[in-house]
Amino acid sequence: MESKSEQNEEWSSGVWAHLAAVRRQSPLVQCITNFVSMDLVANTLLSAGASPAMVHSVVEVPDFTPHIHALCVNVGTLTPDWLPSMKAAAELASKLGKPWVLDPAAVSCSGFRLNACLELVGFEPTVIKGNGSEIIALSSASPGQTKGADSSHESTDAIEAAKSLSLSSGAVVAVSGAVDIVTDGKQVIGVHNGTKMMQKITATGCSLAGLIAAFLAIDPLKPLEATVSAMSIFGIAGELGEAMAKGPASLRMHLIDSLYGLDETTVLNRVNITRFG
Amino acid sequence: MESKSEQNEEWSSGVWAHLAAVRRQSPLVQCITNFVSMDLVANTLLSAGASPAMVHSVVEVPDFTPHIHALCVNVGTLTPDWLPSMKAAAELASKLGKPWVLDPAAVSCSGFRLNACLELVGFEPTVIKGNGSEIIALSSASPGQTKGADSSHESTDAIEAAKSLSLSSGAVVAVSGAVDIVTDGKQVIGVHNGTKMMQKITATGCSLAGLIAAFLAIDPLKPLEATVSAMSIFGIAGELGEAMAKGPASLRMHLIDSLYGLDETTVLNRVNITRFG
Amino acid sequence: MESKSEQNEEWSSGVWAHLAAVRRQSPLVQCITNFVSMDLVANTLLSAGASPAMVHSVVEVPDFTPHIHALCVNVGTLTPDWLPSMKAAAELASKLGKPWVLDPAAVSCSGFRLNACLELVGFEPTVIKGNGSEIIALSSASPGQTKGADSSHESTDAIEAAKSLSLSSGAVVAVSGAVDIVTDGKQVIGVHNGTKMMQKITATGCSLAGLIAAFLAIDPLKPLEATVSAMSIFGIAGELGEAMAKGPASLRMHLIDSLYGLDETTVLNRVNITRFG
Repeated sequence: MESKSEQNEEWSSGVWAHLAAVRRQSPLVQCITNFVSMDLVANTLLSAGASPAMVHSVVEVPDFTPHIHALCVNVGTLTPDWLPSMKAAAELASKLGKPWVLDPAAVSCSGFRLNACLELVGFEPTVIKGNGSEIIALSSASPGQTKGADSSHESTDAIEAAKSLSLSSGAVVAVSGAVDIVTDGKQVIGVHNGTKMMQKITATGCSLAGLIAAFLAIDPLKPLEATVSAMSIFGIAGELGEAMAKGPASLRMHLIDSLYGLDETTVLNRVNITRFG
Repeated sequence: MESKSEQNEEWSSGVWAHLAAVRRQSPLVQCITNFVSMDLVANTLLSAGASPAMVHSVVEVPDFTPHIHALCVNVGTLTPDWLPSMKAAAELASKLGKPWVLDPAAVSCSGFRLNACLELVGFEPTVIKGNGSEIIALSSASPGQTKGADSSHESTDAIEAAKSLSLSSGAVVAVSGAVDIVTDGKQVIGVHNGTKMMQKITATGCSLAGLIAAFLAIDPLKPLEATVSAMSIFGIAGELGEAMAKGPASLRMHLIDSLYGLDETTVLNRVNITRFG
Repeated sequence: MESKSEQNEEWSSGVWAHLAAVRRQSPLVQCITNFVSMDLVANTLLSAGASPAMVHSVVEVPDFTPHIHALCVNVGTLTPDWLPSMKAAAELASKLGKPWVLDPAAVSCSGFRLNACLELVGFEPTVIKGNGSEIIALSSASPGQTKGADSSHESTDAIEAAKSLSLSSGAVVAVSGAVDIVTDGKQVIGVHNGTKMMQKITATGCSLAGLIAAFLAIDPLKPLEATVSAMSIFGIAGELGEAMAKGPASLRMHLIDSLYGLDETTVLNRVNITRFG
């Protein structure tokens, strides 16, 4: 069995290579996301070197989506009039072989939202990213109790649900939490980067989903690895940010600044990834 | 007659007890607010220890609103298609005995918005929070001249209008300004915490409304006291923030950080509340 | 021929006079802008001393728009249901002789958006502000390739397109970039203030459009000069901000703080404007 440091060496050069590729290629990432997070998602993508496009009108999908490199769909402030563009963009992305991420934010807050997410899963997302409660709810496909967008489950409680959802959907499933979990139904990877205070900033989960889309754009055939890299990078930026922060708002600022300034040595030293089981 | 310091002692332990309860209970606060403020409202609630949920679709209200602890409705970027969900959530909150806050932002910018606010008042908000111009306009129910969301009246000019609106609506009425005024139609309380530069940050008024909802959630039977506490806490966070700020944007950051980090000694030392008349 | 420093002296007192007038008169600026930028646009206007109003419902235009001093329309997250209010407000502003700014954000991302912008140009904007790619696309009125909201052209590549668009539309045309270009079809002015990192913050272009509207409000008969002043002031705030920044997020904060605190000496020393050709 590998030691933890050997495992990290196995991953860390890939994590850095992924970030370097995002900066070099500046992939165009279409985001159909919620009203709360648009600003932070766009700034996260810009800071990582990607090119965000918050294009969400169903009439623009046929013209615009063929030009993108990846898509991110987040249902955080879903209304019925937004669903058609999400479905149209997801369907077109799938058809054109472009990677896309589904963030089923607060999926169990209503039957409407759960059904919308189940429909979106049908368009074969490359990655589904949620917190523990969201992944459990989507995996069991029955509305549970939720506290809005905050999770009432640890990510590690959701490992079996994540594996099951991955196998049934064909997507890589990522569970954000104290330890981020990523699985393709067989492998289960734990990303230990990040800090707890990031949960006190709204839209960090949405921003992570956007970042995963950017990383998928530059390595579309390895969605598990690209997702692990994005989660590690975002977590490292959070760790560096927290070292300078006095609270959630300054953490938010320092996180984005840190993401912009990340260098290879820092990434290689801080990557903290392990295999589970 | 009590001295000012005796009055503050009377209030300050209650203010701290309210904040401590929000942190402990983490009430779920549904916010149907405007596009400009969603981000800051959510971050304000998270920093105070509450759990925000920006759920605004009318189709989600029947499933979601029964689970909340308080509701905040803000009409700052109102369009006709948003009004049904505001009314549905307000009606359901009232029916279920859950406290809710109405923020009639820029109420007199159009006849449509004034009528919408008058309809919403009919669903018996627990608290109505506005600036001087908004409370005067809503109280007299006639569109006046307004400068968008900014007030052209001092809060103290609106005391009689606030008392009158409180008596006619049954709501506690809060008027933000250099001195914040809170009245239940009989008592008139002045909250002297806060700083002038907070008016140079968009969405602080909306964030205060959200914070009042969180405080109502943990003391629903004492809306006057809960509102006074929320206004004092937000003002204290602003005072601490301004001491570190170089302008409105750094004030915004330090305000949220300070709200997150507030301790008992600071609160007890800084509460500045007086009775009027 | 004038030297560069003589040219700056010619402009710098006007730039300061414009900012001082915005602070003194606090013009009411209606913004019908995109979801991503509303927060930063409003905070930019507040920090400059203007009064922002994010009023975008078509039913409010007849009541509200007659009271404004300037209008800013930005199509960054356009959907068909937003277009009628943009057209109604633009038409009314034009009819009432109020200056208005069109920001054709990502104009060539779809045929729908290009046609919408062409329709809006028909309502005679006082100023059209875009990046190089947007101005070239709008000037030639044929959808090209775009990378979302980011430009793939230098502003100086767009000088001829800007002059042509100015002559055909009657608007002053402003092209943001490493050097900002402003033209009325005859004169071509270059604004050299600003820093490259501002392009790594979402919504800076939208905020600049809002700021131009505020400057037009206080000098409506001199749209070329007002636009040049707004671009110079925003650029100077960015330069001061970058000197304190560690990355895009702290730049954003320091930019707004700097805009709020700008004094006459700093403005006079930093204005960097030249005539082209």
